[in-house]
Amino acid sequence: MKIALAQTNPTVGDLAGNCRQILDAARRALAAGAELVVFCELCVTGYPPQDLLDNPTFMDEVERALALLESELPPQIGTIVGAPVRNRAAVGKRLFNTAILFGDGRRVATVQKRLLPTYNVFDEYRYFEPGPPQQPVAWRGLKLGLHVCEDMWNNEDSAPYHLYAADPVADLAAQGVDVFVNLSASPFSVDKREERTDVIAAICRTYGKPFVFVNQVGANTELVFDGDSRVHGADGTMRVCAPSFEEALVFWDTDSDARCTDPGRERTESLYQALVLGIRDYVQKSPFFTKALVGLSGGIDSALTAALAAEALGPDRVVGVTMPSRYSSEGSVADSRQLAANLGIAFHHVPITPAVAAFDGMLAGLFSGTAPGVAEENVQSRVRGVTLMALSNKFGYLLLSTGNKSELAVGYCTLYGDTNGGLAVLSDVFKTDVYRLARYINQKAAREIIPESTITKPPSAELRPDQKDEDSLPPYSVLDPILKLYVEEHQEVDAIARQTGADAELVRELLDKVDRNEYKRRQVPPGLRVTQKAFGTGRRLPIVMKWHREPLAQAVAEARAEGVEAG
Amino acid sequence: MKIALAQTNPTVGDLAGNCRQILDAARRALAAGAELVVFCELCVTGYPPQDLLDNPTFMDEVERALALLESELPPQIGTIVGAPVRNRAAVGKRLFNTAILFGDGRRVATVQKRLLPTYNVFDEYRYFEPGPPQQPVAWRGLKLGLHVCEDMWNNEDSAPYHLYAADPVADLAAQGVDVFVNLSASPFSVDKREERTDVIAAICRTYGKPFVFVNQVGANTELVFDGDSRVHGADGTMRVCAPSFEEALVFWDTDSDARCTDPGRERTESLYQALVLGIRDYVQKSPFFTKALVGLSGGIDSALTAALAAEALGPDRVVGVTMPSRYSSEGSVADSRQLAANLGIAFHHVPITPAVAAFDGMLAGLFSGTAPGVAEENVQSRVRGVTLMALSNKFGYLLLSTGNKSELAVGYCTLYGDTNGGLAVLSDVFKTDVYRLARYINQKAAREIIPESTITKPPSAELRPDQKDEDSLPPYSVLDPILKLYVEEHQEVDAIARQTGADAELVRELLDKVDRNEYKRRQVPPGLRVTQKAFGTGRRLPIVMKWHREPLAQAVAEARAEGVEAG
Repeated sequence: MKIALAQTNPTVGDLAGNCRQILDAARRALAAGAELVVFCELCVTGYPPQDLLDNPTFMDEVERALALLESELPPQIGTIVGAPVRNRAAVGKRLFNTAILFGDGRRVATVQKRLLPTYNVFDEYRYFEPGPPQQPVAWRGLKLGLHVCEDMWNNEDSAPYHLYAADPVADLAAQGVDVFVNLSASPFSVDKREERTDVIAAICRTYGKPFVFVNQVGANTELVFDGDSRVHGADGTMRVCAPSFEEALVFWDTDSDARCTDPGRERTESLYQALVLGIRDYVQKSPFFTKALVGLSGGIDSALTAALAAEALGPDRVVGVTMPSRYSSEGSVADSRQLAANLGIAFHHVPITPAVAAFDGMLAGLFSGTAPGVAEENVQSRVRGVTLMALSNKFGYLLLSTGNKSELAVGYCTLYGDTNGGLAVLSDVFKTDVYRLARYINQKAAREIIPESTITKPPSAELRPDQKDEDSLPPYSVLDPILKLYVEEHQEVDAIARQTGADAELVRELLDKVDRNEYKRRQVPPGLRVTQKAFGTGRRLPIVMKWHREPLAQAVAEARAEGVEAG
Repeated sequence: MKIALAQTNPTVGDLAGNCRQILDAARRALAAGAELVVFCELCVTGYPPQDLLDNPTFMDEVERALALLESELPPQIGTIVGAPVRNRAAVGKRLFNTAILFGDGRRVATVQKRLLPTYNVFDEYRYFEPGPPQQPVAWRGLKLGLHVCEDMWNNEDSAPYHLYAADPVADLAAQGVDVFVNLSASPFSVDKREERTDVIAAICRTYGKPFVFVNQVGANTELVFDGDSRVHGADGTMRVCAPSFEEALVFWDTDSDARCTDPGRERTESLYQALVLGIRDYVQKSPFFTKALVGLSGGIDSALTAALAAEALGPDRVVGVTMPSRYSSEGSVADSRQLAANLGIAFHHVPITPAVAAFDGMLAGLFSGTAPGVAEENVQSRVRGVTLMALSNKFGYLLLSTGNKSELAVGYCTLYGDTNGGLAVLSDVFKTDVYRLARYINQKAAREIIPESTITKPPSAELRPDQKDEDSLPPYSVLDPILKLYVEEHQEVDAIARQTGADAELVRELLDKVDRNEYKRRQVPPGLRVTQKAFGTGRRLPIVMKWHREPLAQAVAEARAEGVEAG
């Protein structure tokens, strides 16, 4: 049987648009001779629909969309889609996360997701009831081991958040299936592709059956989905693989023994592609924006952001603005101008001195007798933020904020200043990766896109004379591994000091700094998630709290003393 | 037996401080002759600890804290505390939400929470494995039906999110208990007290047993806990009730038949108390702030915010600033000055004209040929935001933002302008309630605190000549009921039009406006939650999405047409 893998890019909530995608791909699959076409998890609503699922009218419309698909899908081909379906039982969560097989003009079968990820960016138990054990679904004589996303992930080697008692894949295999079919909405992160390969290949080898994996592609707010749909044969080898980061309709014949070459994935390249797709879909799926706007500081973060935006939207839809202050180096304006020329984007020059001087005057009375410091530095950053938002409001530009994950982690940024924007492009990219991406872009273009002087100059916020990032922070080559171990891997002071060779006191100070700056991160724009643990919806820390790594020894001593007094 | 209800105010993450609270209250309970003292849910960590629970070092310290309590609690009294405890099983979530009975110098019993709220602001299944059915716990001959918070809520009449198959209270009753004991972290919302009374009284009457309910008090970031701990007798009547919104240690004797008078709760007064407590705890539980800062516009929102802050922190810890522009009415400065005088708070006057003029000049070239509009209006609001943040950064003030729920719902606010702040005091208070609270404050003081002219003047953002809120929005008396039905009750266009008598087209426009402004709400400060459904962590909507209430009819027609072409 010829099976089509339809790797589509649905938009959250766009039921009509998503149904058109499904109908179109199903017809193309049929025209190509396929007898079955498989779409991704929740392809009808887009993933993640979040609290739209709490809206009864939305769910009424989802039911209409499913009725539309039932009546309009070509009956000659089996079509498997993902959608939320109401739970008719008296108890339990009100919905199931469901895969539905349409064919012969009717609903042939329905299976419900059993393992509901509720950790990191996933909130599925907020909405969905776990389904009962699944049964194989027959289509034209082929027994499908149909299941949804997380259902295949029980055999993961390390699963800190989600150790499940049930193994849906094993349960399906025990009933006898010809091929496993998984509908996924599995977001990109830098190591995810290898994990998928390992898990799927292991399932194939364990049960001696092929595996069809169809994943969503495209970005919806923070989450970037890379596609990477594929088929592995009964021996675990890859048979078909869809391209990553773009829509695709690929085919696999159950009778074919042909292997495909694993296209592989280069880390920096995939980061680049994920960020480009994230920007493009944010703009294309929002009705508000004509162009993207980037404040160009002459530094590498804003240069990279502008380059990514130019790739995502085309240079004619990107606007750069340089906003020098009295502390800006000459190179800052020149490098920004050169970058804009290299990219072919519009470029504006708006010195901020007048507004900074005005604030100095307005605040002179209240600030009299105090030494200039962070307050004055932040005014400069915020004047830039106001300038950029004025352009955004006036011309309908999407302001892209340019801060990276290292800065955001330790709060080396100005709230309502350089953090302003609709989308934080680099908020999940450590500074050391920012450099890698900049070099990658120049290599890829085989010319200087991002000026070499931007790459080589010491990083600086340029908010006071001769300021350098390293005045406040360790070098990024030291900082980033510490932050990665803490933020992404939940390691603590001693373990991090041991693994990085850094001084334990430095590590403790940095970890406390990360904790203390949660209030800033709560208010920054949504960022594109490209690692397993990004700031944003997948990391939920209290703002008001007193977890400061103080050992309880003092409390014990005090308790003893008071106990003696009371006794 | 004399039982103490210890209504404490723990700080999230402050294990040492929380343990000291527990030890102190247990000793006082013992000194008063109690044989059992009951604390609230997760009193060791504070509620909600959120992703601190993912940090293994934090959990190690929790285990040390429990060992400290075991060794230091007075052995003569039974002490029931709430804490996260590691799940030692190979599968399942890694923690249990646990109630532990200490006594005689050891851990006498442990019960685990079975029903894990995972909806609205609650994410418990993110961390916790549901516990097995509980067994009664014996202490000094008394059989306790010990359970945790949500475990008692299965018999709720309307439970849109959480219909559970299990009923822990019924299961405990079936095994024979003398008294139910519930440890809660049940946040305040305006109608919550009556719901608790109904649910607890119904349980008492159903099983003919008394019920001890101990709830957390105090605020942790967004969530305000009102306490309201109480005992109901076997007949459902109230026997003891702790005061709301403050710490308390109250006692109940199992042998006593004495009833207490239900102190009741007046809606506006409780809103006032919740907001005051929310401000106070945000400041007191954060190490950063010396005073609170409020930008005073002369309008009612900022006046109310300043009055609440003065009550929460004392007038000497509140600073007001008026920042008139050329569009500010004379009354705006005069009313603000009068308010500050009435409250006895510091007052500064910083006209924003210089900075606004500077931005006008800086942007003149780029804006040339465009008509003044929202961009220019927002510059004014953002200049105020920069001014306030400069004062915040310079002097360590907590900036309180003043926007209300009505404005935040429809996006009638300026991101990085009037939304700036560490805490959004009124973000869950509709404008019609803002007026009620202002009048309440003046009545309570029996004098004019909030100037009458502030209360009676037509609401205006004063960002252009003669601007009024009603130029852009329907009157708040029309707007607020529509917003409440949509945001808090998930109603949709037709139902809202029917219930409010408003025009369906107006309702649809407003609902779309709410949806479109999700991007603003994602970046505003955390707000104090005082209703069942606040903006913030309990309401998770996608930013990039296309749910626009477009009927599928068009899509159906197109699908048919395309189907014919393809066929």
